[in-house]
Formats: sequence, structure tokens, C-alpha cells
Amino acid sequence: MARYDRAITVFSPDGHLFQVEYALEAVRKGNATVGVRGTDTIVLGVEKKSTPKLQDSRSVRKIVSLDTHIALACAGLKADARVLINRARIECQSHRLTVEDPVTVEYITRYIAGLQQKYTQSGGVRPFGLSTLIVGFDPYTGVPALYQTDPSGTFSAWKANATGRNSNSMREFLEKNYKETSGQETVKLAIRALLEVVESGGKNIEIAVMTKERGLRQLDEAEIDAIVAEIEAEKAAAEAAKKTPSKDT
Amino acid sequence: MARYDRAITVFSPDGHLFQVEYALEAVRKGNATVGVRGTDTIVLGVEKKSTPKLQDSRSVRKIVSLDTHIALACAGLKADARVLINRARIECQSHRLTVEDPVTVEYITRYIAGLQQKYTQSGGVRPFGLSTLIVGFDPYTGVPALYQTDPSGTFSAWKANATGRNSNSMREFLEKNYKETSGQETVKLAIRALLEVVESGGKNIEIAVMTKERGLRQLDEAEIDAIVAEIEAEKAAAEAAKKTPSKDT
Amino acid sequence: MARYDRAITVFSPDGHLFQVEYALEAVRKGNATVGVRGTDTIVLGVEKKSTPKLQDSRSVRKIVSLDTHIALACAGLKADARVLINRARIECQSHRLTVEDPVTVEYITRYIAGLQQKYTQSGGVRPFGLSTLIVGFDPYTGVPALYQTDPSGTFSAWKANATGRNSNSMREFLEKNYKETSGQETVKLAIRALLEVVESGGKNIEIAVMTKERGLRQLDEAEIDAIVAEIEAEKAAAEAAKKTPSKDT
Amino acid sequence: MARYDRAITVFSPDGHLFQVEYALEAVRKGNATVGVRGTDTIVLGVEKKSTPKLQDSRSVRKIVSLDTHIALACAGLKADARVLINRARIECQSHRLTVEDPVTVEYITRYIAGLQQKYTQSGGVRPFGLSTLIVGFDPYTGVPALYQTDPSGTFSAWKANATGRNSNSMREFLEKNYKETSGQETVKLAIRALLEVVESGGKNIEIAVMTKERGLRQLDEAEIDAIVAEIEAEKAAAEAAKKTPSKDT
Amino acid sequence: MARYDRAITVFSPDGHLFQVEYALEAVRKGNATVGVRGTDTIVLGVEKKSTPKLQDSRSVRKIVSLDTHIALACAGLKADARVLINRARIECQSHRLTVEDPVTVEYITRYIAGLQQKYTQSGGVRPFGLSTLIVGFDPYTGVPALYQTDPSGTFSAWKANATGRNSNSMREFLEKNYKETSGQETVKLAIRALLEVVESGGKNIEIAVMTKERGLRQLDEAEIDAIVAEIEAEKAAAEAAKKTPSKDT
Amino acid sequence: MARYDRAITVFSPDGHLFQVEYALEAVRKGNATVGVRGTDTIVLGVEKKSTPKLQDSRSVRKIVSLDTHIALACAGLKADARVLINRARIECQSHRLTVEDPVTVEYITRYIAGLQQKYTQSGGVRPFGLSTLIVGFDPYTGVPALYQTDPSGTFSAWKANATGRNSNSMREFLEKNYKETSGQETVKLAIRALLEVVESGGKNIEIAVMTKERGLRQLDEAEIDAIVAEIEAEKAAAEAAKKTPSKDT
Amino acid sequence: MARYDRAITVFSPDGHLFQVEYALEAVRKGNATVGVRGTDTIVLGVEKKSTPKLQDSRSVRKIVSLDTHIALACAGLKADARVLINRARIECQSHRLTVEDPVTVEYITRYIAGLQQKYTQSGGVRPFGLSTLIVGFDPYTGVPALYQTDPSGTFSAWKANATGRNSNSMREFLEKNYKETSGQETVKLAIRALLEVVESGGKNIEIAVMTKERGLRQLDEAEIDAIVAEIEAEKAAAEAAKKTPSKDT
Repeated sequence: MARYDRAITVFSPDGHLFQVEYALEAVRKGNATVGVRGTDTIVLGVEKKSTPKLQDSRSVRKIVSLDTHIALACAGLKADARVLINRARIECQSHRLTVEDPVTVEYITRYIAGLQQKYTQSGGVRPFGLSTLIVGFDPYTGVPALYQTDPSGTFSAWKANATGRNSNSMREFLEKNYKETSGQETVKLAIRALLEVVESGGKNIEIAVMTKERGLRQLDEAEIDAIVAEIEAEKAAAEAAKKTPSKDT
Repeated sequence: MARYDRAITVFSPDGHLFQVEYALEAVRKGNATVGVRGTDTIVLGVEKKSTPKLQDSRSVRKIVSLDTHIALACAGLKADARVLINRARIECQSHRLTVEDPVTVEYITRYIAGLQQKYTQSGGVRPFGLSTLIVGFDPYTGVPALYQTDPSGTFSAWKANATGRNSNSMREFLEKNYKETSGQETVKLAIRALLEVVESGGKNIEIAVMTKERGLRQLDEAEIDAIVAEIEAEKAAAEAAKKTPSKDT
Repeated sequence: MARYDRAITVFSPDGHLFQVEYALEAVRKGNATVGVRGTDTIVLGVEKKSTPKLQDSRSVRKIVSLDTHIALACAGLKADARVLINRARIECQSHRLTVEDPVTVEYITRYIAGLQQKYTQSGGVRPFGLSTLIVGFDPYTGVPALYQTDPSGTFSAWKANATGRNSNSMREFLEKNYKETSGQETVKLAIRALLEVVESGGKNIEIAVMTKERGLRQLDEAEIDAIVAEIEAEKAAAEAAKKTPSKDT
Repeated sequence: MARYDRAITVFSPDGHLFQVEYALEAVRKGNATVGVRGTDTIVLGVEKKSTPKLQDSRSVRKIVSLDTHIALACAGLKADARVLINRARIECQSHRLTVEDPVTVEYITRYIAGLQQKYTQSGGVRPFGLSTLIVGFDPYTGVPALYQTDPSGTFSAWKANATGRNSNSMREFLEKNYKETSGQETVKLAIRALLEVVESGGKNIEIAVMTKERGLRQLDEAEIDAIVAEIEAEKAAAEAAKKTPSKDT
Repeated sequence: MARYDRAITVFSPDGHLFQVEYALEAVRKGNATVGVRGTDTIVLGVEKKSTPKLQDSRSVRKIVSLDTHIALACAGLKADARVLINRARIECQSHRLTVEDPVTVEYITRYIAGLQQKYTQSGGVRPFGLSTLIVGFDPYTGVPALYQTDPSGTFSAWKANATGRNSNSMREFLEKNYKETSGQETVKLAIRALLEVVESGGKNIEIAVMTKERGLRQLDEAEIDAIVAEIEAEKAAAEAAKKTPSKDT
Repeated sequence: MARYDRAITVFSPDGHLFQVEYALEAVRKGNATVGVRGTDTIVLGVEKKSTPKLQDSRSVRKIVSLDTHIALACAGLKADARVLINRARIECQSHRLTVEDPVTVEYITRYIAGLQQKYTQSGGVRPFGLSTLIVGFDPYTGVPALYQTDPSGTFSAWKANATGRNSNSMREFLEKNYKETSGQETVKLAIRALLEVVESGGKNIEIAVMTKERGLRQLDEAEIDAIVAEIEAEKAAAEAAKKTPSKDT
Repeated sequence: MARYDRAITVFSPDGHLFQVEYALEAVRKGNATVGVRGTDTIVLGVEKKSTPKLQDSRSVRKIVSLDTHIALACAGLKADARVLINRARIECQSHRLTVEDPVTVEYITRYIAGLQQKYTQSGGVRPFGLSTLIVGFDPYTGVPALYQTDPSGTFSAWKANATGRNSNSMREFLEKNYKETSGQETVKLAIRALLEVVESGGKNIEIAVMTKERGLRQLDEAEIDAIVAEIEAEKAAAEAAKKTPSKDT
């Protein structure tokens, strides 16, 4: 009997915006998504929901680039994601045209979060059912960045973070295991976090790696499988040597 | 007592967009529709609901071309379909005029899915009661493509897929029987999938075949009947030789 | 307690658009209306509800021409009909002015159905309470056409069809008795279909006949009476010769 | 508990537009109104509700002219009537200015009915609570015309008709007693119809007579009283000569 | 449980516009207001609700002039009144500017009633909670006029009328005692009507007198007191001479 | 269960505008506010709600000037007040610029009350939760004026009046004790009225005095304390000399 | 069953604006926030909610500058805050451009409070879920200022104030302990107030200090820790010397 279906997002008596919280539920049903920021490498990882056998895996890339130096992964409603991504891409281009400089990661994060906030305060629309992880290197300082935005329009910067299905487990894993890493170690950490919640290993995982020099690169299945194998070997070794503290770098 | 009849699509407490899900129900009541992508041939097949005797069969073509190299079939509300098709056709033309190049299959798929998403997030409209299958050859690379969009505005690429009434049975059939095919074999696979759910065989089926060279061609009843006969013969043979694994190519 | 009275047409949980279905109820209460397409003649017939004695019969013509080569009859709300007819007529004129060619029957049918669809998807309006039968000869090929549109905005082409009150009975009759006819035989078939559901024969019937050469012509009562008499004579003869299969051409 | 008070007129499950039917109730509470078309004379008659003693009878004219050759009487909400009349008058003037010809009676009837229909299909307004009788001589052919429009926006042409309070009784009377008349006989028939439902005779009646030569003329009380007296005399005579068929001309 | 609070005034099942009737209730709670038209004098009288002791009586004038030759009194919501009065005054000025002639009393009455009607048929506003009495001399013929408008937008002309609190009693009194009067006798009749429902006599009464030569003049308390005294003296005399018919002129 | 929360202010069945009355409740919770008009001095007094200890008392001035010769105090929602005050100040400036003369007190009162009325009749806004006291000297005649406006948009002129919390007690006090005063006596009367309902005397009171020569001057605490002391002395004296009638001038 | 979810903020029967009060609940759930105004130093302090371990602390600055001489901290919805801050910053820039002078602290406070009020009176939006503390030095007089605004759009000036979670305890503490201070003493007072409600001391606190000469400076953790240590030492000493009155300067 909850009267949730209203044309505008308003406060409940105890100060909640229910439409925003319901949108978060849509996020919580989304793909497990993880981001890890290394010193020279930033990694985004996304669970690939058991793709139907005949679906063309190319078409379901969940990690996209907004500009040459910025990438985004998100959990939640796929159709909403596309809208947000399109508008962010146009903003990147438009910024280059008018200011003649690329956007910073923070700039585009603010832009995306701003759009999300607007859809929580105005009538005639519903919030976006999306949380995003945005990564990139600052085009001026080269500093790597990882941001998260959510349906309320809040954003925050992270060393490593997760969203979507089972994000709590992944976040806990990251908190326990995070060290500042670089290169392949950063990739491995991201994959290990995803494997906490994704079954049947590498084939259900999509990984993209961003470096300052090479921009965004999607790992192919072979690469992922190799790393997953390596992780499992290490884990087995660690199990064997139980009591010995786990080494994950 | 469900309060479904609201002027805007909003989140339910558990993160659902009910209007979108209800629109999917309209799709599930639509014609069984199937698409199969071969190497040089893409086939769209649609169940023809028992046409009233006096209806002019020409007028109920359910498979239409958006441009010379792109075709679309859809399941759901026929009147909604026409609106979506018109807007897609205009976009194709307008793209040719402004960019002086034809659209790619992905471009027009994104355009259609984008329209569908917009009708799920803004007030004053309801979602489109439509899922579409979009096929075509890339005008630059010649690669064949098969996309699906649904009322939420999500799209995805497929080797073969089905929508509308009994789409699950068809999809299962396709998953079991799909092999990469070409030419007449691709057509046969599509028809076999449809026959899984359509009774009384060829006369209730509409089939369109697209090749790079010849574009879209609607098969006439005789052609369909011939293939159906062939399929049934093979099936009978297979039944006879039970235990022997079925050969469908 | 049905909450039918909403400002927008939306999906019910099982994928229905109730406002559209309710509008169909208004159609089902409308005049029995029939259309028959012959090779050189197209006939529209409409039941005239018992006109009050003092009403001026001229003013209640239910069959109207949209252009010199296209006519329309409809069942449902009379006032809605006028709006639709006006807009269709303006479109015909406007098409002639801008394209310098008359519209085809399909073009104007699409236009009318498109208007009807729009009123089912946007807020602030209700659907048209109308089904239409549209007939005409293609201005380029001379081919005769009979289309039907309904409140959802769907349209379809027919050899013969009926709408409005008791349309099912008429359609069944047509399905049983339709043969491809021409000239006076086409007229007779339409009248026979109407007589299935209209009592007290010719005086409650309005008939318009379209031929390529002469355009639309409304039959006067004498003409209709003559045909009705002929039909009844044939029927009586047939009854007399019971067991003998009925000859209706 | 009827949920009648909605911002838009929509279909009920059985295809009714309730706001339109409720508006008809407002009409049924309006003044008894009658129109009779003779060969050279058209008469409009309206019941004058017991005017409060001090009200200035001039100001409550219920029969108004739209143009020199067209007059209108209506039953229902007086304030709504004024709006409709103003818009119709402006249309008459504007037609003269742009087309340089007066409107026909049918043209202005269509215009008024069109306005009424629009208020039944768009959001943000309610239907007009009005039925109208429109009379006039065609400015080109001189043919007399009597039209009726109602809240749904339907219109129809009549030899004689009634609307408002007790319109059924008046219509029945007219159907029984109508003959094609001219001049004073037409006036008498209209008055007799009104007297069927209006008590205390002539002083509660307003009569306007339109002829091609003299346009609209409101009868003064003396004239009406004279005719009422004549009618009563005839009636008394007829009563006296009971069994003898009544002569009303 | 009455669902009166809707954003638009619509018909109830029995043809009522409830918002308009509720607005009339606001009028019925307003000041008793009376208007009397004499041959050379028109009088408006308004009950002054027991003014708080410290209120500045000047500021509560309830009788205002719209133009030099037209005055208005009204019962109902004071704040609504100001809006209506302002718009009427602007119309008077604007008419003078564009047509270079003053408005007639009927013109401005139609204008005011038209505004009132508009607020009963469109969405997003409520009706005006006001009935008005409008008086004046025709600027061309010099004929005196007294009009009344109400929340529905209806208007009517009167010899004498009342509105607001206890208007029925005043109207009855006027009907019994009205004679065509002039000058001071007209003033006396208006005051006598008010005294029927206003206690404690002259100090709770506001009277304005309009003559063709002098325009609108508000009587001061002394003048009113004098007339009230005169009336009471006459009454006492009449009482004394009971059975003798009352002479009020 | 009252359905108070509607997007527009409409009539209840007994002619009330509830949103306006609810807004009055907000006023009744506002600061006690008093205004007294003397012959050469006008005084506005406002209760200062127990200011939190650290609040900067300067910032909570409740008595503001609209122009050099006009001041305003109000009870109700502080944030609403600012909006109203801003718009009034802009109107004052704009009037000076366009008419090249300062506004009169009545002009700006009408302007403020007009704004308040508008917010009670249009959709999409709520009424202002404010009653105001407006004082000033007419810039042309030098006559002092004191006006009150309320949420309905009504205004009235007063010799002395109160609004906000306990305004009834203050008004009663003023009615009992008002004499036309000047200079310091006027100030004293205002303070005495406030002290009727404000506890702990002078420190919870804000007083502003307007004279024609000096414009608006806010009294400082010392000044107020002195007067309060004087008042209390007089009161004590009066108590002592009980039975002797109180002298408050 | 509270019907809180409406498209517009309206009055409840007892004069409350519930949406505003619900928004205040969102504020009450926000970070504890404190502001202290010294003679030459103004301090803003904000509780940092236990930042997740991997979150980048830089990105969660809760104290921001609006212009070189004005800073703002706020409690409530973070995403709303960003919107308000952006608009305030644009106003600061725009003021500099058009007036060629920096805004005063009061000016920008009024601007922010005005925005907040607007969102409580118009339809189609909800109030901002935010209370703000705004500090700065007047660019002309150099006087330090501390303002607070809340969701209703009210603002007020303070010597020291708190908002957000547990603001009452902090305000009480400030009221007991406030003395006019300068330099480091002002900083210490703000931190002591925060420590009243923030556990685990310095690491959960964000402090920014504004001086006329140096503008806004965020303290680093070391600086905060040092002061916290100093405070705790003093406190311990005071505890030791119980009975001796606490010295906090």
C-alpha cells in the first residue's frame, strides 16, 4: 500500500527521499562493479551476468570511455546508463570545443552527479537508477582518479570501491586487502575483489585497464583467464600454507 | 487494487519500474518473432496471427525496412510500432542528408532504444509496448548484425534471438540448435524456431531474408511452404531414425 | 471501483491499455458499418439509427468523402468523427498543395491511424472513440482499397469488413458469403451484410458507392429499396428451394 | 463516492464519457427551448423561468443573433452560453472579413459543435454545459435551416426540435403535430409546443421569429399573448367538438 | 469525505458545478448588499460588518467606482473583489483609449461576468468568490442600469436587487415595496431594504448614490442617520396607524 | 484525514478557502506585532522571540523599511516575509523610476495585498503565510497611515492594530486604551500593548518609530527599557491608587 | 498513511509546511556542523562521518569557499548542497562582473536563503534538504560575519552556531562557553564544540579557518590533532582541579 508511485521525489516525514532510495535498490540489483586506482594504472571490473548463449558479447560492454582519458562503469538500469553516458560524452566533446581543453575527471564527475541530482529535485521525472564508477588520469597533472556517483547525485573519490550486487562484500574485501599497487598488481586486486562475488571465474568478468600512456584497454578473455588462474594458484598455495598470512602482491 | 495507472513511470520500493514491466507484458502477448544472423544472410521471422479471412494479407507485413540495408520486426502494440518505425525511418533519411552516409545498424538501434528509454523516465507519456529485432549489414564493413531492444530502452546484439509470444521456447530451441550458418540454412533455422510455437506451419509465418547484395526480400508463401515441407521431411526422417542425433543443417 | 478515469493512458499490470479498450466499447455501441471492396466498385454501408421523425436526414450522412477519390465511414462518437475527418481532409488538401499530387488511400489511412495512436500515448488527452473504414482507388494504379483503423491506432487492409454494433455478425456473414464481385453485386453484398443486423430493411441503411470513374455516390432511398427488395426476393426463392445452396451473386 | 471530479474527460469501462453525460444533465435542467422551421419562417421559443419580479426582462433575452441571418437559443448554463455565443459571433465577423462572405448556418454550427467537442477531449477544461438550437437562412440559397448541437459536440439538422427541461414532451408533441407550415402558423406551432411544458402561458415565453426579409425579430408580450389566446380558443373549440379531430392550422 | 478540493471545476453526475456552488456559499457569507435603480438616481447600499473600533472606516469602502459613470458593490471575498475591480477598471481605461469612448454599463458587466465564467471552466484556478452589483448611466442614452453577476459568470439586469448575507429577505422586501422612484425616495428604499437585515441602523450601513449629473457620491454618516431617523419616524407613525397601509414614499 | 495537501487553493462546500485559513494559522503562531498611528508619529512594535544567546540581534530585525517613508512589520513565516518585502521594495524603486514619484502607503499596500491574493487563486503555489502591518506618511499630504494585510490578500486601514501571536488580547487592549496621541505617547501605547502579551518586558521587544521628519528609527534597548520602566512605574502608581481610573497618557 | 508525497509544499490545517519540516529532518541527520565568529578569525568545523577506509579524503571536503572572502559549510543532503553551492558561486562571480564589486556576506546569504524559500512555495519541486553556515569578512568594512540558513529559507546572523546531527548539544555548549575570542582561541572553541558530539576526536573533524588577510585555510590533520591534544590536556587539568571553574581561553 506504499504510495511510492508519485510524479515527484519528495521528503518523507523522517527526511527521506524514497524515490532515491528505491532507485538505489535498482542499483543493488545491478552488476557487481569494482574500481581500483593504482599509481600508474586504474582498473574497472564488471560482472557479466550469465550472458544468454547466443547474445553477442561485444554488444554488452559495460565499461565505456567518455573521452580518451576517462572511462566509466555502472551498475543499475542499462537503458538509463546509456542516457547518462551519452550526455557525459557530449559534455566532454563540447568542453573540448568551447574551452579547447579536455575535461578533468572531477569535472565530468560533477557533471554526471549534477544530472543525477536534478532528477531527484524536479517534477515530471524519476531519478536515474544508476551508480557509476568514473576513472581517469588528470589531463594536466597525470594524477589517477576514481570517483563514484549514486542516484542521489552524491559523488566521492576513492582508492578502490565497488557498487552493484554484493558491493558490500567486495568493499570489505578491498578494505582488507588494498595496498597501493601499480601495473598488473592493480589489475589482480580488482579481479580478486570481483571473484569474491562472481561465480565461475574469468568468463563472467569484464575488465578494462587504463594507463596514462595507452588509455583504456579492455582485457580479452585469455588475459583474464590467465590472471584468474594465477590468482587461484596463489590462493591454493596460501591455503596449503595456512596460518601463513596471505600475500596478495 | 494495484495503483498502476499513473502518469509517470517511477520506482517501486524494491527498485522496479512497473510501467516498463507492464509494457513487457504487452510484448509477451505480441506475435512470436525470431531473428537469426548467418554469415551472409540475416533472417527475420514473424508469426502471423490467424488473419481474418477477408483481411488483406499485404497490409499486415510485420517485417519492415528502415533503410535499404536495415530491417526491423517487432512484437507488441502494432500502433506503437508504426510510430517507432516512422521515427526511425526519418532518422535514417535525416542521417543520410546531414552526414551524407547511411546509418549503421548500431546507430539506429541506439536511436530506437534511446526513444524507448525516454518514454520511461519523463512524465506525460507511457513506455512503448514494444520489443524490436533490428537486422542489417554494416554499410562500411559489411558485417551482419542482429539487435534487440525492449520497452526499458535496453538493447543488445545477438546471433539469434526471439521475442513476443512464447519467446522463451524459441530462444531455448535456438540455443540448442544454433550453428553459424549461411544462405538457405539460416532461413531454415529461423523457420524451425518459429514452428516450435506456431501451429499449422507455413501459412501462419512471415519471413524476410536480408543479404548484403539483395537487401531485404520477403519470402512468398510458396517459398515458405517449400522450406516447411523440407523441414518436416527432415524431422520425420529424424523421428524414424530415433536415437540417432538430429541433424538440422 | 475501477480507477478508469485518469489523465493518461497507461499500461495495466497485464499489459493492457484500458482507455483504448474502453474507447473500443464506445465503438461497439456505434452504428453498424460495413465496407466491401469489389474489383471496380467499393461500397460503404452504415446503419442509420432510427432517425427521429423531424430530424433532417440530409444532415446525418455518416459516409463522407475525404478527397475526390477517398471516402470514410466510421462507428463511435460522432463528434470525435468530425474532428478526425476535418484533420484528414486538411491533410488531403495540404498534400495536394505541397506535393502537388493526391494522397494514396494508404497514406491517409496511416495519417488517421497515426493521429489515433498519438492520443493513446500522450498525457492530457483521451483516445478517439472511433473505428473507421476508409475506401478509395489508388490515384496512380487505380487499385481499389479498403482499410480499417481503430482507437489504438492500428490499421489493416481488407476485402470486406465491418465495425460498430454487431460487427461480429456482419463479419461472419461476409466471411461466409464473400466472393470477389464487381458493380451492382458488390453493392448487394454490402447491403446483405448490413441487413443481417439492421431491422426494417432499406430505410435504416445508408449506402455509398465509389467507382474509379464516378467517385463517391450516395444511393438514394429508392435505389436502396429496390436492391433490398431484390435481395428479399432472392432470399425467399432460396428459402423455397431449401436444401439448394444459396446463390448470392 | 462517484469519482466524477477529474481534470479530464475520459472513457469509462463501458465506453461512456461521463463528464459529457453529466453536462447533459445540466442541459436537462435548462430552459425548455424549441425551434420550428417553416418554409419562409423559422421560430425559436424559450421558456422564461419565472423571472424575479424586479429583474429587468430585457437583459435576459435567451434568443440571440450570431449574425444578421443566424440566431441561436440554448439550454444549460447561462454563463457558458455567453462564452460560446461570443466566440461564434467573432467567428462570423472574422469570416466576413477574411472570406468577404457571410457564414452559412451549417458553417457556424460546425464551428460551435467543434468547440464543444474540443472541450470533451482535451485536459484542463470541462465540457460546455449547453445544448444549442441554431437557425438561419442560407445566405446563398435562402434555404431555412435549424440545427441542434449538444455538449458532446454532435450536431444535427431538424425540421423542428426541442431541448432543455421537458424536451421529450415537446419533441413528442412536435412529432405528432408537425406539418410544414409558413408564416404565422409556424409561430403558432412553436408556441403550442412550449405551452405543453410551460405553465401560466404567454408571460413565461420568449419567442423570436426569423424571416429571410426581416431577419430576427423578438415578439413582444402583447403579440405572444394574442397568439396564446388564439391557441387556447382553438383548443377550447376542439375540446368542445371532442371526437372531432383537432385542427391546429 | 467530500472530495471538493480539486484543481478544476467539473460537472457532478447530476450536472452541478460544485466549486461554483461552494463559491456562492462564500457570497452568502458576504456583506448584505443592495442596489436600487430609480429614474434619475441609482443607489448602492452595503452593510458594514461591525468594524473593529480602531479600523479606519475610510479604508473599507465597499462601494467603488469603475469609471466616472459606473459603480460596483460586491459581496464575498474582499481580496477577490479587488482583483476583479482592478481588471474592470483597467478595461474601462483601455476601452476609452482604444475606442475613444467610455464603456457602457452592459459592456463592463459582460466583461466582469466573462472573467468570472472563465475561472469556472479552465484548470489551475478557482472561481471568484464574489457576486457583484454594477450600476451606472449609459453614457450615450443616459438610461440608468443595475446589473448583478455571480460566481458562475451569469449576469442579469434589475430594477432592484440584493446579494450577500440575507439577500433573500432583502429581495422579498424589495419585491413587496418597490415602486419606480427618483431622487431621495430611491435612496430611502435602498436603506429600508438594508435595515431589514442590518441591526443597529445607520452606523452599520454604507450608501452611495449615483446621478447622471453628479456621478457617484458616498453619503456621510450624518446624511444616512438623518434618513434612517426619517424612516423610523415613518414606521412608527405607520405602526401607530396600524391597519392603515404603510406609505413609504 | 483532512485532505489539506492540494496543489491549489479551492473552495470547501461551505465556501471556505482552507489553504488561506491554514496560512492564517501560521500567522497566529508568528511574533506578536503591533502598530499604532499617532498624529505625527507611527509606531511598529514586534515581540522578539527569545533570541538564542549567540544569535546576532542585528540580523533579526523584524521591522523593515520599504522606502524612506514606508515601513513594514509582519507576523508569520520569516522566509516568506523576505520574498514579499523584496518584491515590495523593488516595486517602490520601480515606481520612483517610472512615475518619478514615491509610492503612497496605500499604493504599496494594495500591491502587497494583490500579491497575496494571487497566491490564493492560482495553481502551483501556496498562499503566503504572512500578515503585515504597513505604516508610513503620505508623500503628498503628510497624513500618517497604518494598514494591515493578511494571507487572503485583504487589507484594511487602522488607527492601531495587532497581528501574530495573541493579537486578540493586544487588539482588545488597544480598543480599550486608544486615544489619538502624538510623539512619545504613541510610542508608549504601542509598548503597553505589546507588554500585554510579551513577558520579561523590554528586552523581548523591538520598536521602530516613524516620523515625517526623521523617517524610520529603531529604538535601542536603552530607550525601550526607559519607557518600559516609566510604564511600570505608572502602572504601580495606578495599582496603588486602585479604583482611580488608569491614566495612560 | 501520512500523505507526505505531494508535488507541492502546502499548509497543513495547523499552519505547518510539512515538506519543509521533513527537509529539516534530513538536516538533522546531516553532519554535525559548527561555526564560531571571532574578532579576527572565523572558524567552520564539520564532523567527518566515519569515511570508508578507501575513500579519498580530499574529495569529501564539506567546507567550501564561495568567493575569496566567503566560505560555507552545510548539513543535509550532499547532492543538494552541491547545487546550492554552484548557484551561489555563479552569483558571486556574476556580481563581480556586473557590479564590479565582490558580494557581501549578507548579500550571498540572502541569495541562498531566497533560493531555499522559492523551493518551498512553488509547485514541481521539493525544498532543499540543507541548512548552511556561511562565514566571511565584509569586503568593505572587514567585519566578520556568520550566518545560518535553513530549508524554509530563513536566515539569521550568529556569534556562534551549530547545525546537523546533535546541533542542540553543540549550541548549548557554545552558549555556555562562548566568549569573544580571536585567533587560535576561536579555533579551539569551535573544535571543543564539535568534540561534544563527535567521538574519536580529531580524525573525524574537518576545520577551516578564515582570516581577513589569509582567506580560507583548511587545517591539516596534524594541526587539528595538536589542538585536540591541547584541549584534552586542559580538560584533564580542569578535571583534576575540579570545583575550580573551567578556563577555556
